[in-house]
Amino acid sequence: MKLLDIYARMKKDIAFVERELEDSVYTEHAMLKETSLHLLKAGGKRIRPVVVLLSSQFGQYDLQRIKHIAVPLELIHMATLVHDDVIDDADTRRGQQTVRAKWDNRIAMYTGDYIFAKALMVATQLSNPRIHQILSSAIVELTIGEIEQIRYFFRTDQTLRHYLLRIKRKTALLIAISCQLGAVASEATDDICRRMYQFGYNVGMAYQIRDDILDLTGTEKELGKPPGSDIRQGNITLPVLYALSDTGIRRELLDEIERVRLVDGQTDVSPFLRLIRGGTYIKQADNLSSRYIDRAIEALNGLPDIRAKQDLIKVAHFIGNRSY
Amino acid sequence: MKLLDIYARMKKDIAFVERELEDSVYTEHAMLKETSLHLLKAGGKRIRPVVVLLSSQFGQYDLQRIKHIAVPLELIHMATLVHDDVIDDADTRRGQQTVRAKWDNRIAMYTGDYIFAKALMVATQLSNPRIHQILSSAIVELTIGEIEQIRYFFRTDQTLRHYLLRIKRKTALLIAISCQLGAVASEATDDICRRMYQFGYNVGMAYQIRDDILDLTGTEKELGKPPGSDIRQGNITLPVLYALSDTGIRRELLDEIERVRLVDGQTDVSPFLRLIRGGTYIKQADNLSSRYIDRAIEALNGLPDIRAKQDLIKVAHFIGNRSY
Repeated sequence: MKLLDIYARMKKDIAFVERELEDSVYTEHAMLKETSLHLLKAGGKRIRPVVVLLSSQFGQYDLQRIKHIAVPLELIHMATLVHDDVIDDADTRRGQQTVRAKWDNRIAMYTGDYIFAKALMVATQLSNPRIHQILSSAIVELTIGEIEQIRYFFRTDQTLRHYLLRIKRKTALLIAISCQLGAVASEATDDICRRMYQFGYNVGMAYQIRDDILDLTGTEKELGKPPGSDIRQGNITLPVLYALSDTGIRRELLDEIERVRLVDGQTDVSPFLRLIRGGTYIKQADNLSSRYIDRAIEALNGLPDIRAKQDLIKVAHFIGNRSY
Repeated sequence: MKLLDIYARMKKDIAFVERELEDSVYTEHAMLKETSLHLLKAGGKRIRPVVVLLSSQFGQYDLQRIKHIAVPLELIHMATLVHDDVIDDADTRRGQQTVRAKWDNRIAMYTGDYIFAKALMVATQLSNPRIHQILSSAIVELTIGEIEQIRYFFRTDQTLRHYLLRIKRKTALLIAISCQLGAVASEATDDICRRMYQFGYNVGMAYQIRDDILDLTGTEKELGKPPGSDIRQGNITLPVLYALSDTGIRRELLDEIERVRLVDGQTDVSPFLRLIRGGTYIKQADNLSSRYIDRAIEALNGLPDIRAKQDLIKVAHFIGNRSY
């Protein structure tokens, strides 16, 4: 199942948001236009705009208003990706050259700043201060999460709690507020706004865990980047944490991680991947991801039984099972 | 004359803003707190908060409201400085180690993102959408200016117009909206808001021209960084443009700039500095700076004759004459 099939009925509105996204980064500045459109055209699942559109159907659905939420949230997501690629020295993302690889790190940094600024500019079209407060608090957490990620690179002494807080800031929070703000901007009830946040948070946690699993199990073709990218940059993910707590392979795994660290990730990581794939660690991580999906769906209980609710359940299942 | 003497009467309010600045970047995250406070403590003239405080005296002066303008504008300025230092590979600023030198480029990038996010968070305390629209549009221009600066590095074919547009985006715009938003947030009349923008814009242009002159004439001790930093990173400033239009030295100057460019600025630039200091180019640039100061003061004509007006005139003169 593709995410696109799920929201076929919203095709027109999604296409509209897509055009708005392109328009929003428009500038007469040739290079910025090129770098921004390069990013946009590289695609992505547009999960944030889609959940904004769905959650806003629990209130007064008004696309002309909601676009001022959907567009900035996708732009903020994109801006963080460009900055992350600088940090990670990433050359490809989604099978495409990154901005830093096609241009350079400096241009990537300022492209991120520019897209971020454009996101804010779009959001200021909404006058509800609560929206801006939710948005800016989440962005602060997001930037803390980014720097936290660096701090925990190659840290094999980190706990599950560290990992969960990190992926909350890195991924779940932005999806959570996408759901929440769609509802807030449509003037849904406080209870609905809270449930939407809970839904998005849990879906986001599951999403990042799946993402971390796929980096360990996928092929370069499926991922659009080589598998094992996480460990090469020092990112210790959930299956690795589970494997580290298995005394049977802990010593060997620590040595392997240390070997990767000492050469700054410039090495073949297949021995590491074999170790992780060898046990039940992927399965364990998958179980936790499924639990988050269950909680996401639970959060929808008690919401009016409209089509958007069924669509959100489908989105949750898609994310829980996605294999690319 | 020091800027501090000018606003001695506002000492208490400025100290208050200073504390608010520190509070605003507070986080339990040890490293981000350290990098942010390192930046704040490195000082700076706090021109943006000061003009916010002054301009807001043309309306209903309310420090509790105005701080939500003064603090973000200084934070945004700081965030751009950290990112600029990454681009410029700068090791010192204001005689202090830069974040990128003391930590690293990645941490500097995310510290900039974090401070920027905090700036937004503070600004969202104000509910007037016009404020947010002015702020976000200026930030977009600012980021375009940053990338423009890179594009024009070592470009000796650029015109005066390129230079002026660049310093407008880089410096003048943020000072202009500091003045404007102080007035807007205090509900001053539209005419006053417009005049304040004009004042800030012209002061900002003069400020950056002075800054560019000082980089050519100052000593390392005065500047807190070595003179000639601009040309080493490829930044062609106003006196250099004037010198390039002097056929008597143009050839020699082009060769010298090319020599600096070929070694990525890793060279002694004293021959370049001698060439520029030798003619009347600094004087010419100084004249243009003075014209901007005159226009800034003209913009204040017709404003009510309160003490803030006299203070703004003093700020303008200070900026026109500053030698550090």
